[in-house]
Amino acid sequence: MPQKHSLQAGQLQHRLLGPSVSRPKIPHPGFPRMARFQSFDDSTSPSQGPERIANLRAELARRGFEGFIVPRADEHQGEYVPKSAERLAWLTGFTGSAGTAVVLQNAAALVVDGRYTVQAAEQVDTSVITPVQLAETPAEEWIATHLPVGTALAYDPWLHTQDGLRRLEQAVARAGASLVPVDINLVDVIWVDRPPPPQAPVRPHPGDYAGEDATAKLERIRRKMAEAKVDALVVSDPHNLAWSFNLRGGDVGHTPLPLGYAIIPREGRASLFFDPAKITNEAGDAVGDLAEFAPIGDFQAALDELGAQGRKVRIDSATGAVALIRRIEAAGGKVDVGADPISLMKAVKNQAEIAGSRTAHHRDGIAVARFLAWLDREAPGGTLTEIAAVEALEAFRIETGALKNVSFPSISGAGPNAALPHYRVTSSSNRPIERNQIFLIDSGAQYEDGTTDITRTIVVGEPSAEMKDRFTRVLKGHIAIARAVFPKGTTGAQIDSFARQPLWEAGLDFDHGTGHGIGSYLSVHEGPQRIAKTGQTPLEIGMMLSNEPGYYKPGAYGIRIENLILVEGRRIEDGDREMLGFETLTFSPIDLRLVEPAIMTADEIAWLDDYHGEVRKRLAADLDAGTGAWLEEATRPIG
Amino acid sequence: MPQKHSLQAGQLQHRLLGPSVSRPKIPHPGFPRMARFQSFDDSTSPSQGPERIANLRAELARRGFEGFIVPRADEHQGEYVPKSAERLAWLTGFTGSAGTAVVLQNAAALVVDGRYTVQAAEQVDTSVITPVQLAETPAEEWIATHLPVGTALAYDPWLHTQDGLRRLEQAVARAGASLVPVDINLVDVIWVDRPPPPQAPVRPHPGDYAGEDATAKLERIRRKMAEAKVDALVVSDPHNLAWSFNLRGGDVGHTPLPLGYAIIPREGRASLFFDPAKITNEAGDAVGDLAEFAPIGDFQAALDELGAQGRKVRIDSATGAVALIRRIEAAGGKVDVGADPISLMKAVKNQAEIAGSRTAHHRDGIAVARFLAWLDREAPGGTLTEIAAVEALEAFRIETGALKNVSFPSISGAGPNAALPHYRVTSSSNRPIERNQIFLIDSGAQYEDGTTDITRTIVVGEPSAEMKDRFTRVLKGHIAIARAVFPKGTTGAQIDSFARQPLWEAGLDFDHGTGHGIGSYLSVHEGPQRIAKTGQTPLEIGMMLSNEPGYYKPGAYGIRIENLILVEGRRIEDGDREMLGFETLTFSPIDLRLVEPAIMTADEIAWLDDYHGEVRKRLAADLDAGTGAWLEEATRPIG
Repeated sequence: MPQKHSLQAGQLQHRLLGPSVSRPKIPHPGFPRMARFQSFDDSTSPSQGPERIANLRAELARRGFEGFIVPRADEHQGEYVPKSAERLAWLTGFTGSAGTAVVLQNAAALVVDGRYTVQAAEQVDTSVITPVQLAETPAEEWIATHLPVGTALAYDPWLHTQDGLRRLEQAVARAGASLVPVDINLVDVIWVDRPPPPQAPVRPHPGDYAGEDATAKLERIRRKMAEAKVDALVVSDPHNLAWSFNLRGGDVGHTPLPLGYAIIPREGRASLFFDPAKITNEAGDAVGDLAEFAPIGDFQAALDELGAQGRKVRIDSATGAVALIRRIEAAGGKVDVGADPISLMKAVKNQAEIAGSRTAHHRDGIAVARFLAWLDREAPGGTLTEIAAVEALEAFRIETGALKNVSFPSISGAGPNAALPHYRVTSSSNRPIERNQIFLIDSGAQYEDGTTDITRTIVVGEPSAEMKDRFTRVLKGHIAIARAVFPKGTTGAQIDSFARQPLWEAGLDFDHGTGHGIGSYLSVHEGPQRIAKTGQTPLEIGMMLSNEPGYYKPGAYGIRIENLILVEGRRIEDGDREMLGFETLTFSPIDLRLVEPAIMTADEIAWLDDYHGEVRKRLAADLDAGTGAWLEEATRPIG
Repeated sequence: MPQKHSLQAGQLQHRLLGPSVSRPKIPHPGFPRMARFQSFDDSTSPSQGPERIANLRAELARRGFEGFIVPRADEHQGEYVPKSAERLAWLTGFTGSAGTAVVLQNAAALVVDGRYTVQAAEQVDTSVITPVQLAETPAEEWIATHLPVGTALAYDPWLHTQDGLRRLEQAVARAGASLVPVDINLVDVIWVDRPPPPQAPVRPHPGDYAGEDATAKLERIRRKMAEAKVDALVVSDPHNLAWSFNLRGGDVGHTPLPLGYAIIPREGRASLFFDPAKITNEAGDAVGDLAEFAPIGDFQAALDELGAQGRKVRIDSATGAVALIRRIEAAGGKVDVGADPISLMKAVKNQAEIAGSRTAHHRDGIAVARFLAWLDREAPGGTLTEIAAVEALEAFRIETGALKNVSFPSISGAGPNAALPHYRVTSSSNRPIERNQIFLIDSGAQYEDGTTDITRTIVVGEPSAEMKDRFTRVLKGHIAIARAVFPKGTTGAQIDSFARQPLWEAGLDFDHGTGHGIGSYLSVHEGPQRIAKTGQTPLEIGMMLSNEPGYYKPGAYGIRIENLILVEGRRIEDGDREMLGFETLTFSPIDLRLVEPAIMTADEIAWLDDYHGEVRKRLAADLDAGTGAWLEEATRPIG
């Protein structure tokens, strides 16, 4: 489905060519026309904040509150939230994917992490709202030092988890103030033209792709519930709901999520709570006797009923709102806050999901090869821009005939923009792709058989010796993960440094994780496993992750090399332990113009040549002659 | 000071030559005579358990309890505990350094971790007490499934931290029973000849070794207290007390600890609570106006007073007993359970401590070189035993004239005994050091200027190809840590896998951390920093750690190579980040007979040759001619 933010072609042309652009800009070349699944819009403005914040303050004063907390969150703690939950963007102008505003009567802060420092300062009116760096001053710290003694800070209990609330409670206690839940979100009170919640249809996810029917999944879920000694599970994470019942929807951008809740009792039918307008006949037929669909309006009454039965209810610690906990407890139930067992089950892909991913990667690999060949052909002409590249790549993916959406807005960065790991190109930030500079593109596709995520860094013209050194170190880190062998039980945190070691040796590092989990026609970011300092989940056979070390030189260039990988078992002769390793799923050339073989080991060079051999073997037969010839050259052995 | 458990020479000879030994045994050779600081005694017997457990059950019944928990812990959660706190060993016969007994009326369990599984089964009467594996069934799990509904489980609140108690509370709640604190430990009630608490004198630690006076340390501690907004700090960890006030004692084995407590208020004099018999005039003079010495009997009243003032008191989460928390709260105080800030300060060594450690390592290096040369000379004769090696090494250390104690009982393992990472040789386990087998010795010294800890693995005769391969992989891991470069802020967990990677590649691993912190004439195991999966403390310049990867083949052989290392700053040209690395502090040959250069990189061989060159340079001038010639050969370059 098309993304809500996407634009009409005319609008895009207007902005691209219009007078408002502030940086060097060139019209994009004729080939592709527009992005269907991604907007380049700066849809907010710093000027929108002051009046809205003033209105919020008046509303607070009417209710006797000193302040209100506005996190970038919906009721499900989702990464992509529906337009109706974009309260932070509406109130402040800040459109980043993470951040928290705290609005007090005489001060207001927008707390953001390092990737959004620059963006926050550009998007909000800093005379009214102060951007604050999370690493230096978490929102709780800002509250503890700014909230006046004896006042009351309001919050929406549907937008905070128990852990989050505990940190807020401590902060408010330090300030000598009180923390008060409100029944209605105070931004919604003043947001008169707030869009309604999304109503995309809920449809079944075909069994050929899901690989396990909902009956079998529910049986496994209930076994975990029995182990945890809970009577019922409230599924607050729509990804987990979608996976459990083999349903997909379209309520948020880039992820085929049906927003809603499920209640799964140990025995009897589950209940699925959605806006009734979203339920299709096919979804009803597919779920059959396993569950009943109920109107989302009945959800709170169902929680009351669960509580009244005195049942012990598991609420997901990662996504469960405190409002859920309170409701159940108020009705007399016992709440057990812990991991939703579905998260770990969903992370381990079955044979159908793995086969689907292989097919999706083959399809995506062809589109990406065509794109890279096109880029090599067109870029030296000097007429390409970051947006043109996004549009071209999307066009090649659309030509596969299977693209449902892009799995996230492409990160398309030329020169210094590539140094921003989470850069999102807009019509006003759009840069030309210039000679002797690096161009980085991180993109992915949603196909019904699998979700992809790939980053390639290429050079147009001649790279500097430093660029080659840095690129090769990132590649060495990528290869270290790809070749890693580790015992069963090893967590992502334990192998994360393998990707960093070649950079560390040169006094360098990168400030993001090395890898995240990925869904099967679900979210491009999926937990609980990660290859990162914080990745405490043991890696298991069947888990899919990204492998994406990088290096960023602010103001100059950025590098990232990303493939998806699958955890597989490894037999090692004369070994003592059950060992694991990775199979690489993504097949696409790594730019040899940026590789410095002199700092690679023989094993690393052999890996690269083998990988490129595999890329040729898998893709060549399905490419047009021009792309095939390009691929032959792009994947030539260097060893 | 001599260790409490140590034996008279006659006793030792008797046991060595007597009829009770069950494994192949040879008399030890003439050279060294005995270990002064380490016992080889099996001082407990499985037969002691049944009657004592029966007595405990009778006492429980008298008081209306179903059961009692007996952890291997003293009031300070120490690694070495005084004889008077060896309740677990007395009750069950189990002498390991970690474990928990749960005695119920109709069942009793001894829960131990993997390193003590075999030992527990040998040391206790399994018809009365069931050894239970911690990894499979933690004590809490055993309680939850064995404690009868409606009964009461008693515990001693001086032997459990708040975290530990919370886990117990959950377990008892699952069992539907209650958890009840007792005023007197129920083992003490039946242990009629329980030894009195130790009374070793408390003496000042000289300023030349401490490097910072107590006044300056207290100022820094109080700054941290101000940051944490606490009014007072209860120092429950005697290591922290010793460090803060530059005091040392001798109440437990191997660590010069003065057992006692301190209360440090934000303002005014601190109070040090000790048995008055332990206080020397020198200690009183050294502490001066900073603190008053008070009888340990007044400690609880002092907690009451602290509570009555309504103060906010920091209790150490790692070592603070729940009894402390209860006492303060009952008196009206507020308790803030968190890290004792002293732990992190103590971990970062100052210039005097570092200089002291270098001197101590030079001294210890000479003793170890003499020992290794002696071993190479004597071992081929076939008359040495594990105990003889311990005695010899201790004798060489005593000859330095500076040995205060060994820093832990030496782990001296020949052949299959080397495969037990925490092996402690006793007269009944003592094995001969045989040809073509591996011998591992892990030992350390307490000198007043520094604490050492070193492991060397040597082969007598010819190693197998497999032994060489495994040894070289362990060495590669050791070198990977020694050569590691990493950004400021990196934790030990992030680099731990560098030590394992060469083993993982062969399907192998080891089941202990790679490194622990070490004290300055204090505990050989010191936190909070660790190089291990659980090492979440960022490494800082001045922290000292061990670097000790290993490999263990059960029933065959074991390998470990351990040096101490110091975190230092690293400047890297053209780098972006503030980087850290390690300086190696331990200088002693690594057995080249076990090294397989064919599987090492040029960089690794260069490290080994450089290291051996440094060993020669530092030690040669201070060795006798024979040892010098041996060292020349033992440290020859292989590159």
